[in-house]
Amino acid sequence: MSDVMIMLNKNELPRAWYNIHADLTQPLPPPLHPGTGKPATPEDFAAIFPAPLIEQEVSRQQWIPIPEPVLDIYTMWRPTPLIRARRLEQFLQTPAKIYYKDESVSPAGSHKVNTAVAQAYYNKISGTKRLATETGAGQWGSALSFATQLFGLECVVYMVKVSYEQKPYRRSLMQIWNATIHASPSPQTEVGRKFLEADPQCPGSLGIAISEAIADTVSHAHTKYALGSVLNHVMLHQTVIGLETREQLQRAGDSPDVFVGCVGGGSNFAGLAFPFIFDRNRKKSARFIAVEPSACPTLTKGPYCYDFGDTAQMTPLLKMFTLGHGFVPPGIHAGGLRYHGMAPLVSALYADKLIEAVSYPQTAVFEAAVTFARTEGRIPAPETAHAVRAAIDEAVQCRNRKEAKTIVFNFSGHGFFDLVSYDKYLAGKLDDFSYSEEKINEALRSLPKVNEPA
Amino acid sequence: MSDVMIMLNKNELPRAWYNIHADLTQPLPPPLHPGTGKPATPEDFAAIFPAPLIEQEVSRQQWIPIPEPVLDIYTMWRPTPLIRARRLEQFLQTPAKIYYKDESVSPAGSHKVNTAVAQAYYNKISGTKRLATETGAGQWGSALSFATQLFGLECVVYMVKVSYEQKPYRRSLMQIWNATIHASPSPQTEVGRKFLEADPQCPGSLGIAISEAIADTVSHAHTKYALGSVLNHVMLHQTVIGLETREQLQRAGDSPDVFVGCVGGGSNFAGLAFPFIFDRNRKKSARFIAVEPSACPTLTKGPYCYDFGDTAQMTPLLKMFTLGHGFVPPGIHAGGLRYHGMAPLVSALYADKLIEAVSYPQTAVFEAAVTFARTEGRIPAPETAHAVRAAIDEAVQCRNRKEAKTIVFNFSGHGFFDLVSYDKYLAGKLDDFSYSEEKINEALRSLPKVNEPA
Repeated sequence: MSDVMIMLNKNELPRAWYNIHADLTQPLPPPLHPGTGKPATPEDFAAIFPAPLIEQEVSRQQWIPIPEPVLDIYTMWRPTPLIRARRLEQFLQTPAKIYYKDESVSPAGSHKVNTAVAQAYYNKISGTKRLATETGAGQWGSALSFATQLFGLECVVYMVKVSYEQKPYRRSLMQIWNATIHASPSPQTEVGRKFLEADPQCPGSLGIAISEAIADTVSHAHTKYALGSVLNHVMLHQTVIGLETREQLQRAGDSPDVFVGCVGGGSNFAGLAFPFIFDRNRKKSARFIAVEPSACPTLTKGPYCYDFGDTAQMTPLLKMFTLGHGFVPPGIHAGGLRYHGMAPLVSALYADKLIEAVSYPQTAVFEAAVTFARTEGRIPAPETAHAVRAAIDEAVQCRNRKEAKTIVFNFSGHGFFDLVSYDKYLAGKLDDFSYSEEKINEALRSLPKVNEPA
Repeated sequence: MSDVMIMLNKNELPRAWYNIHADLTQPLPPPLHPGTGKPATPEDFAAIFPAPLIEQEVSRQQWIPIPEPVLDIYTMWRPTPLIRARRLEQFLQTPAKIYYKDESVSPAGSHKVNTAVAQAYYNKISGTKRLATETGAGQWGSALSFATQLFGLECVVYMVKVSYEQKPYRRSLMQIWNATIHASPSPQTEVGRKFLEADPQCPGSLGIAISEAIADTVSHAHTKYALGSVLNHVMLHQTVIGLETREQLQRAGDSPDVFVGCVGGGSNFAGLAFPFIFDRNRKKSARFIAVEPSACPTLTKGPYCYDFGDTAQMTPLLKMFTLGHGFVPPGIHAGGLRYHGMAPLVSALYADKLIEAVSYPQTAVFEAAVTFARTEGRIPAPETAHAVRAAIDEAVQCRNRKEAKTIVFNFSGHGFFDLVSYDKYLAGKLDDFSYSEEKINEALRSLPKVNEPA
């Protein structure tokens, strides 16, 4: 009987998150105030985030203890399994070893819950009664609904209208977990009403939904805002993934050559990779590959500069790889990867060439997903399937070069709510959206002119 | 940090299935040939089942080794977690301990895979090239598709037409795993064509789909039939659930007072309960509760007698609790519990009063499911929610009586493909189908007249 699942005991759950900001040779370029263009102060964030999260956002402390009530909830599904994909290896006839960290076992079905629980907790102890957020297809919204339900917070989710109507299943999850969901643009906020007046049929976008969630936050008492990716504190909370993986690989006696994760805002990739990047015990030659859709090629085609996090220019400016806050990616099924920017921490590592990036069109991604499902049984989310594609390609290269490398990728979420996209792929009806240089150049012209702080 | 998940290592996976037939004081009443009414011989089954499964069907050997290739696949998700539902306990303010065995973590999302893998394996080594089966909502069809895909067998699934059209997601799963799916009644078989001729809009039924799968089997070379519940060998394969649970409870230092599982054909209940029923170490006072829908009250309202397994009277006659093979249960959302009969092994134990049965209407069941989802995070399948209801009621009774009992139930599958039914429940649009004595009495009149063998 072969070694397939590598499990940890609950007492091996990490007790602290790893903050990679501590190990960067220089601190991140600071966020800038959207009005003044000057470095934003912690006070600037106080209207939308509770103090402990603002503190984590700017902290350069290497280890930050995980509070007991958060650990207590983590134990409902953590430590998650690390699984050796032996059947996939056999199918590919590769000498490589392929492992995947299965974050899909969480109640909401993805890694997003790791930060949702932490954010709900810090808001709870800071006196927040109500959290506002946005969601596209609903991965983040459902994770936050689950977390707020456990802490007895209200949760209001602005869900991009086209997803609200066409993807009802994660909406159902949110309802089961007691969240209030508004199709965005909504009549709830001034910005929403403005978009509805201009076009009552407006399908919405993540940019509008973010603006509505922030507008809701600042206009309601005891309400804060929660974001599911991009920010430093989100990356921090996700490091439980990599910390567990490190322990599990040690138990398996393996040291990886290649780490792989998909990137939208960057948090699941960061969660897996960060604890290894500055680790003295990792192989010197180890590579870290961020995988993005070629329809939204932030790292592979964008510049590294200051930009807004949302379309309506309400958020602070962050220095990051970006396609411009005006960029609207085509409607690929991996909705979670349709974001114009990239986490500042991931961006800084990419600028320093500590990590690599690669992009794939969606039919190649679904082909890999189906290969995985037919060998390993599990159905990846379309986002996760990007990591599967890159892991398979690395393993095939190992076969061609006769190299017995060890590859680890993050299985960030399951695809049970995305089966319509699999149906389309299997019926040969899936489009590849070609990367449009023109469209990106147009969006890049929307980049704000910024005097970078020295 | 409280003890939540109790995990076993892969080397603690059971190496043999437990055959409760060995411990019954007398052998089960034999199946009868549908044509002659005489006890069916192993040869009678040879047209539809491979020899090793027929052997298991009649075996009275107490332990049957699990073949290495089956164990090897089990390790892809087994041992499954046993989880202490502390948050549910707190919510109910009960002194009871509640544990659930999480079978939803399998690739196909339910316990069905435990027998699907075993059946695919024994067919493979017996020279079968192709397996035919029926499915209602698709739990069993998707489990068998997964298993046949891993063993390189063809799989053809006759799926009840109304489900084929209204519940496309488990159909998508089956397609991903390479199965061929026919909406039943189909033009593929004579019996299907007959139904289509009579009514081209015929929505189908499980009874018709079984008949089509058997008709397909006997008319194709190298093809056998696979059944997902009811039969002895299916109960046998499911005992990995209870065997693991026994080990996990021992580790937790607990000995249960109450075991709970939902029953349609009986296999997930059997899987959990059978290893404990004749166990000398279990509490003498322990109770075993089978939970069924009040819309299909096989154990609580049916007689114990010989009946056919399908509507078209093609299967052998089995002695079981039954509502009559002509009984068509109302369209409750727990499709997997809409079966007129009950596994002969479960029936014999119930007749001997070694187990109990209870029934619930579906709104009470969904209320329990939502309570569970809001405390424990996991979304139960509508079938599983019946077990949740009974476990909660037992725990509430413990509160009222101030008894610190230990309750264990089987979380047989997740509800990610059943969220439409949750939406209906939350919108107050779910019907309770009242139990119709008249309808059952009518169906009971269809029971065959049988001279029971001495």
